[in-house]
Amino acid sequence: MSRFLSPALSAVTPYTPGEQPQDQQYIKLNTNESPYLPSPRVVAAVSEAEVEKLRLYSDPACAQLLRTAAAHFGLQPSQVMPGNGSDENLFFALRAFCDESHPLAFADITYGCYGVWCGLLHIPTHIIPLKEDFTLDPADYHGLHETIVIANPNAPTGLCLPRDAIEGILRSNPDSVVIVDEAYVDFGGESCVPLIDQYDNLLVVQTFSKSRQLAGARLGLAMGNAALIADLNRVKFSLNPYNINRLTLKAGQAALEDTAYFDKTRAAIMDTRAWTMQQLTDRGFTVLDSRTNFVFASTERINGGALYRKLKKNGILVRHFDAPRIENWLRITIGTPEQMQALMDAVDKILEV
Amino acid sequence: MSRFLSPALSAVTPYTPGEQPQDQQYIKLNTNESPYLPSPRVVAAVSEAEVEKLRLYSDPACAQLLRTAAAHFGLQPSQVMPGNGSDENLFFALRAFCDESHPLAFADITYGCYGVWCGLLHIPTHIIPLKEDFTLDPADYHGLHETIVIANPNAPTGLCLPRDAIEGILRSNPDSVVIVDEAYVDFGGESCVPLIDQYDNLLVVQTFSKSRQLAGARLGLAMGNAALIADLNRVKFSLNPYNINRLTLKAGQAALEDTAYFDKTRAAIMDTRAWTMQQLTDRGFTVLDSRTNFVFASTERINGGALYRKLKKNGILVRHFDAPRIENWLRITIGTPEQMQALMDAVDKILEV
Repeated sequence: MSRFLSPALSAVTPYTPGEQPQDQQYIKLNTNESPYLPSPRVVAAVSEAEVEKLRLYSDPACAQLLRTAAAHFGLQPSQVMPGNGSDENLFFALRAFCDESHPLAFADITYGCYGVWCGLLHIPTHIIPLKEDFTLDPADYHGLHETIVIANPNAPTGLCLPRDAIEGILRSNPDSVVIVDEAYVDFGGESCVPLIDQYDNLLVVQTFSKSRQLAGARLGLAMGNAALIADLNRVKFSLNPYNINRLTLKAGQAALEDTAYFDKTRAAIMDTRAWTMQQLTDRGFTVLDSRTNFVFASTERINGGALYRKLKKNGILVRHFDAPRIENWLRITIGTPEQMQALMDAVDKILEV
Repeated sequence: MSRFLSPALSAVTPYTPGEQPQDQQYIKLNTNESPYLPSPRVVAAVSEAEVEKLRLYSDPACAQLLRTAAAHFGLQPSQVMPGNGSDENLFFALRAFCDESHPLAFADITYGCYGVWCGLLHIPTHIIPLKEDFTLDPADYHGLHETIVIANPNAPTGLCLPRDAIEGILRSNPDSVVIVDEAYVDFGGESCVPLIDQYDNLLVVQTFSKSRQLAGARLGLAMGNAALIADLNRVKFSLNPYNINRLTLKAGQAALEDTAYFDKTRAAIMDTRAWTMQQLTDRGFTVLDSRTNFVFASTERINGGALYRKLKKNGILVRHFDAPRIENWLRITIGTPEQMQALMDAVDKILEV
């Protein structure tokens, strides 16, 4: 920390992303990436001719991607905004809809960045504990008069609320924006996109990092009422008008267009998830009912942190959060069937010793 | 604007980027892009294999690019931080080193985003007028006790301060960060990077958008004392840890490595600039002494706004700022010799009518 740092910043604890070892010696089940390659259409779209066009700025309006995304989701282009990862969309939303006198409400166990962004932007937080079984009680979010963010499905639990529970929250908070972070929705969740035309206080955020195999391209979409999207654009054009690079715009468009590949790969993940949940249950693990591309599991046979470290020694990276209530749990990304078999072999080896 | 927008935001006027027409029917001399393609090494670096790796997150530490950049500039990796465009680096710096009680000082005529970011972050501004001839008087910046940002060379004027003038400002503001925005330095300016080891209050920001032909990839570098860079990383990891996509990291590294191509293309721009300045002077224009890849010019023969519109009708886009003191001036990017000849032909046609 330098002697010049703004005092307000020294109180902020940055987010710690999952390890990204550059040597690729691990089976990487720690950051919820896809084990499958991007669509062949994506590879074709990032052509030599497009790389040569990097000399020109990207379209700050992202018009082509917006048209494709709007058609894909049954919306108007004015109801969609892409971001440099869904993290950027969420940050823009907090800057637009929260401030010193408009707090943000969210669960005690959820995506860690919500709290970090509030620190960075001086936004008061209202942290609402999940129930003992890690489920979210929608009644806790009724009539809050605060901006709300709900990851649905939630991370790292993997649990999902039905759309009508979110609708109840939207209806009981007509004067507050409700942000639904659907990063994992494509693996069995129920999207709130169909509610956008009915609720002007609904903002849905999705990502291309998980179900569209583009974590390294950095692309997310915010979707909502056109006035909300205009607010997000106001933040974007006040911060970084050219926030998305040309190749990512092309890659994202191609990924959206290849619906067959999207359906095939997410079905494969859900099949492997079912197998993985059964295998872990057979070994005495408690496994939450995942609607995501990861499972959240614990066992009384070994402490979560210890299991994380032993798996790493065996060449398998999973995610362990050293945080209250979940220090004994592991978040394990669903990989290929072969990778999950290797995980089970390693678990057996560790638990038998 | 929605009814949910934070009141503080409604007072912010977003930046208006230069037009980015998607039909490519214009000779585009309005956003200071390079008329030359990226280095062949960049095209080779964005290979099919790298596109396939988009399924994985990028390295949040950007370690490979940092090593290359540090070696290139004679620094340590801990003295460098890449951003999603230099705009992001500058925004991070303002968040780190300014707040309600630490204003930002900058010129009245300079890059428009400085003021916009202050609005977004609630930072008070101290705006210091340039002299009548658009030069900056370094004495105006001595002993300010405020964070300072100086674009050097400046935009849209193109004028440059010598390094020792910046050094005087650094020396007289030992308790304030001085940010030197060197977006255009490779076209004849004097970089302050060699001062980094002597001044712990110096932050230099450069971009790959102009002299390295990568405007559409979005990449910038902040360089300074390791403690300042640690502060910027604190902001980055509190906002968007994966802020740079994989392909841009690869493209940027390849662009840095091809020093021969870099030297050849910037020399070509400077040659064409000399020709352009002479041609405009011959036609009675006042042209400032540019050290950038654009020229700033005006004439009493036609109003700046009118000339901008007539050039556009003739298929040539230049930049006109409808702002006090410069409403009669045009900022014209240096293109290829053929593009600049077409500009002169259009000017002759317009002025003869």
